[in-house]
Formats: sequence, C-alpha cells, structure tokens
Amino acid sequence: MTTIYNFSAGPAVLPKEVLQQAAAEMLDWHGSGMSVMEMSHRGPEFISIYKAAEQDLRELLAVPDHYRILFMQGGGLSQNAIIPMNLVGRKKTAGADATVDFVHTGSWSGKSIKEAARYANVNVAASAQPSGYTAVPPQSEWHLTPDAAYLHLCTNETIDGVEIDFAPTVPIDVPIVADMSSHILSRQVDVAKYGVIFGGAQKNIGPAGVTVVIVRDDLIGHALPICPSAFDWKNVAENESMYNTPPTYGIYIAGLVFQWLKRQGGVAALEQRNIEKAKLLYAALDADDFYRNRVAAPYRSRMNIPFYLRDESQNEAFLAGAKARGLLQLKGHKSVGGMRASIYNAMPVEGVQALVDYLNEFAKR
Amino acid sequence: MTTIYNFSAGPAVLPKEVLQQAAAEMLDWHGSGMSVMEMSHRGPEFISIYKAAEQDLRELLAVPDHYRILFMQGGGLSQNAIIPMNLVGRKKTAGADATVDFVHTGSWSGKSIKEAARYANVNVAASAQPSGYTAVPPQSEWHLTPDAAYLHLCTNETIDGVEIDFAPTVPIDVPIVADMSSHILSRQVDVAKYGVIFGGAQKNIGPAGVTVVIVRDDLIGHALPICPSAFDWKNVAENESMYNTPPTYGIYIAGLVFQWLKRQGGVAALEQRNIEKAKLLYAALDADDFYRNRVAAPYRSRMNIPFYLRDESQNEAFLAGAKARGLLQLKGHKSVGGMRASIYNAMPVEGVQALVDYLNEFAKR
Repeated sequence: MTTIYNFSAGPAVLPKEVLQQAAAEMLDWHGSGMSVMEMSHRGPEFISIYKAAEQDLRELLAVPDHYRILFMQGGGLSQNAIIPMNLVGRKKTAGADATVDFVHTGSWSGKSIKEAARYANVNVAASAQPSGYTAVPPQSEWHLTPDAAYLHLCTNETIDGVEIDFAPTVPIDVPIVADMSSHILSRQVDVAKYGVIFGGAQKNIGPAGVTVVIVRDDLIGHALPICPSAFDWKNVAENESMYNTPPTYGIYIAGLVFQWLKRQGGVAALEQRNIEKAKLLYAALDADDFYRNRVAAPYRSRMNIPFYLRDESQNEAFLAGAKARGLLQLKGHKSVGGMRASIYNAMPVEGVQALVDYLNEFAKR
Repeated sequence: MTTIYNFSAGPAVLPKEVLQQAAAEMLDWHGSGMSVMEMSHRGPEFISIYKAAEQDLRELLAVPDHYRILFMQGGGLSQNAIIPMNLVGRKKTAGADATVDFVHTGSWSGKSIKEAARYANVNVAASAQPSGYTAVPPQSEWHLTPDAAYLHLCTNETIDGVEIDFAPTVPIDVPIVADMSSHILSRQVDVAKYGVIFGGAQKNIGPAGVTVVIVRDDLIGHALPICPSAFDWKNVAENESMYNTPPTYGIYIAGLVFQWLKRQGGVAALEQRNIEKAKLLYAALDADDFYRNRVAAPYRSRMNIPFYLRDESQNEAFLAGAKARGLLQLKGHKSVGGMRASIYNAMPVEGVQALVDYLNEFAKR
C-alpha cells in the first residue's frame, strides 16, 4: 500500500502513534472498563487525563504560573467573539466604547476584525492589504491606540501563509492577543510577552472541537453582561474547564499529542525539524518559475505553504497525480485558489520529501 | 472479567458496537488512508459522513422538511444563551425587550432562566419549586405571555429526574423551545409541535462537544447583532454546519450511534425497551422504604433516576459494593446528593437487571 501523506490545513494529520494508542484504548481505558468517551468529566479517571494534558501543555510551552490554560469549545472563530466579550469590559468607560487594535495580515485577522466590531471600536493599526497579504507591514508603521483594550494578531495566517515571528512592542497595559491556531507548538514562544494566546486544536494539537486559551490571570474577570456564562473565562478558569461539560475525547487526544511531542524532544526539537521541512519545500518551489509562492521571504509560514502553478490549467492534473502518489488534500483554500501544503508537527520530513520529489517530477513532465 | 455497566449521566455509555467500529476505523477510514480526525471538513470523505448522520437523524426523529438540523459546539449550557440571541430579535420592539416564558422544573431549566435574562425579560410561567422539583405544575396553572418570543422547557431534567411527556398548548406564534439533551431519541416525539429542539450529545447521542439543534426554518435569521457569527443559526444552516470547523470526530461517532439505533429498530423500538427498563428499576426502588425516589409517578424520567438510601450513612458502602460488581458512576449529582442511575438508550436491559439485583441484595444485607 502507498504511504499516505496528508497535507490538510485542518483538521489535519495526527501522529500515527497517537491514533494507534487511541484505537487500542477505545473500549477500555487503563482497565477502567470504559471508553474515554463514556467517562463522566467529573470522575477521577477523566480528571487525571485532564490534569496531565494541562500540565504537559504548560511544560511544552513553558507557560508561567500566572497564566491559566483553558480548554474550551467553538474553535478560533468563536473565540474571536469570546475575546472581546471578555476583554473589552476591562477598558470600557460609560458612553465610550473601548478600542481594539488589529494588524490585518490576511483572512483570519480579517475575520477577527469583523467579529470584534460587534463589541468594540475597531482600529486597523496596519494592513497587509496593499501587498496582497504577502508581507507584514513594519512595526514602525503600525498606528497603535495608546489605551486599546488589546492588540489582536493572527501570528500565522493559515490561508495566506504569512507568519509573524516576533512579539511587537506595545503601549503599557495593552495586552497582545495572539491567534496561534495554526502554529502553536511549532516554535518556541515567550508566553510572557502575550496577554492571551489561543488556538483551535485541529491543526497542531488534536481533533476539531477543542480550543486552547492561555490567558494571564489579571485579564480574567471582566466579561460583559452579554457574554454567555459558558464563555466567561472566569467561570471556565475557576472550574478548570468544567463549568460545562468539556469536549472530553478531544482533550484526551490532545493530551496524547502532548505526550508524543515530549517524546520527540519538545517544542525546541520540533522547531528544528519544522525549519528543515519548510526550507526543503520552499527551495523546491523557488527552484524555477514553474511554481510560485507569493509571500515575502521573512514572513513565509513554516506551517502553511500556499503555492500556484504557473500554468493553472494543470491544477487538476497536478492534484490527480499527487493523490495517486498518496499526497492528499493539497488543494488550496477556495478563497485564494491554487495549492496549499500544510506541514504541521505531525508531518514527517519524509512526507515533505515525497512532495518535493513529486513537485520536481511534475515540473519536468 | 466483570461485565461493566456505566450509569453515568453524561458523558455516558455508548453502544459497544459503535466503539468497536470506531477503534477498527481509527487509522484508516474506509480505505482513505486517514483517520476521520485527520480529514478536512470540506473534503468528500467527511461530507459523506456528515450527510449520512444528518439524514439518519432526520429519519429517526421524522424531522419534517421545513426544519433544519444543525450540529454545533458548546453543549446545552451555551445553547441556553445562543437561543435567546437567535430568537429574541424576532419579537423585540424598540425600547421594550421581548419576554421569554419558562417553566421551571429543575436544575437545567433554572440555568436556562439565568442565561436568557442576559438578553430578554424572563417570565417564569410556572415553577415546580414548591414541590421541591418533584412534579410538573399542571398546564392550567401556567401563566403564559401571549406574545412571548418563545416558551422554554427542559423536557427531561437530568439532575432532578423529572420528565415532561407532552407538548403543551401555547399561544399562536409562540414557538416551544425544548431542551431534550437527556432524552432525545429515547421516545417518539412530534417534532412539528416544537419550534426548536436541542440537546448536548453526551447523553443519548454521542461524545461531549457536539450539540444538535433542530430548528424550524422561519425561526432562522433573527440573530441579535451581539450574537457571535459562529452561533448565528443562519450562518450554521446556510453552510450545513460548516460555517466554522465542526467537531468532526464527534459528528462521526454520533452518526455511528444513529446507524446503531436504526439497526435496533429505531426510536419506537428503543422507547419500548426504555419503558421496560424504567419500570424494572422504579419497581425495585418502590418495593419497600429502603430506597426512595421523590418524583411523582406521572413525571418520573425514564432516563435519569435519582434515588436516596433511607440511611444515608450507607451511601459509601452502597457505592463501593456497586463498583465491585461493575456498576459504575451511580453517585448522585453534587447539588442533590444521593444516587442516580442514568439508563440511556445504550444501557442494555441486562445492566438495569444487574442494578436491580444489587439493590435487592444490598437492602437485605
């Protein structure tokens, strides 16, 4: 059988070891006689699973003690609304809505701007629109609001393939909120530079339906009255993500992924591997003008690599040939077309090499 | 090994056949080379899984064509906020908030009242509080609002063990919204009598993290501006639950449960089995005064059966003895104490019989 390599942008490839363990434990977790799916979230078995997952993630990202890790539902898009509902009240003064700053670097930051506009004044401090979302405007050109409720960044644009690899300098008491959905755990990050880090799990963590939110203690407790109680970070934090029933099985799988990451040597080791993988793939795309990635070199994502064939009439032939070789889900997002290879933590170097071999062969044909 | 019977109120027991199939397909769904967890929600493989699940649920509950079935995230508690955010705007007139009617029959309707009060005037049309939540006030005593945005009922109170087995008569153009989380698919129901039926999946459907919402077409499209876009039923309906990434694996498991239900003969056959199971258990509890269920006979839930030992100092001994026999998760909800046996669709008659045998033996000891 052909080895399958799955380049989906999310839900995405998971480590085979994780899936094997999940299959083996499906009917009887550790002699409990129950599947993890069948466990009360308040029972000792699931609580032990939860605590291990939380602790492993804390260790992997070196999350300081004054940050809480929340496991929520709704994905990144919901969190784009939940964040202003939780943070805008901290700065809102009677009769004057708070302002939220955004750097518009692509599709996902665009969505977050629309969502926040329901709850706050929105200031687009900088926009990559003039470049066609192929570069991040230099910090010197960002027009930040001195007393903004927060600055929102999407530090890796999954659709546009643009990555921000720095934590910008911000005014005092303006927390940075970073949507790291598609590159969390792929590189080392200094959590203390951010107020909130969040991400849908279905890219680099686990199955769809789990959202990880890492939030600094002092940013908890400011929810607007219209915030549903299940999305008030205070309720979630005080009840260790069990204010309402959490997505238990998804948390369990995320926990297995965290254990796998630790066995691989942690985030530092993964980052080295990810650098190598990205270098390999970009080199193949840049080798001649048969393929094209539009993103300026310093902002090229290590995780999501959109590319176009010079002759787009060959798109279908390219995808059919890829599929025949076991290279799956390479079609680009419908909003931008072309191709996209997502090479998350769970994608082995061999998978990228197989794609590179195919790129070279197809170009020669 | 002892046969395990899991009486958890949710997340709860799943059919063994479903877990076996999930384990067998974990690494390679139908020759795709992928786990269901690894599939793009927009790919043909997952779309086929989604469509089959939607169609099977429609068939099982005989959902009319003018109702949409949505698979969402957040559970029942989130939906308690999402519902008013979607329905209150339909009746709201400038300067006067809409009114929502509630029948307060226990813990879950109580939670829904608190949540709706964020978005509307709340009218408790009737309350079971005077009876200690052991009976549903007769309909003749309900003080319904003629032009309410909707009437909210929790038709099965998971914690209190109170079930409403009728669809009440309501004023014209007041839709009934029914939280059926803990008894959906356990009994036949005339969907056309309701405006909205919803439920968290983790009791009678599948894993935690999926919420099923069945909503009449004309109730879609009235979301308040403060409703997060991912929770606007219009967006969810128009995109067949893929406005944002749905909880794909949970939907897959729910789909396997629906297939299992069809093999069992559908909801009518399950209902007969559930009547038999409940009769067996209540008879054992009523046999003498060693055990006590407080709920008045006409309102006793077939799904969730709370009970108390006359001598509560024996609670720990009772639970330890039960566990030794493989009868798990019988401890009552922390807010009401005592014991609780949840006997959902996936609990076989043999499990209830094993519990009854133990109840008799423990009482004699």
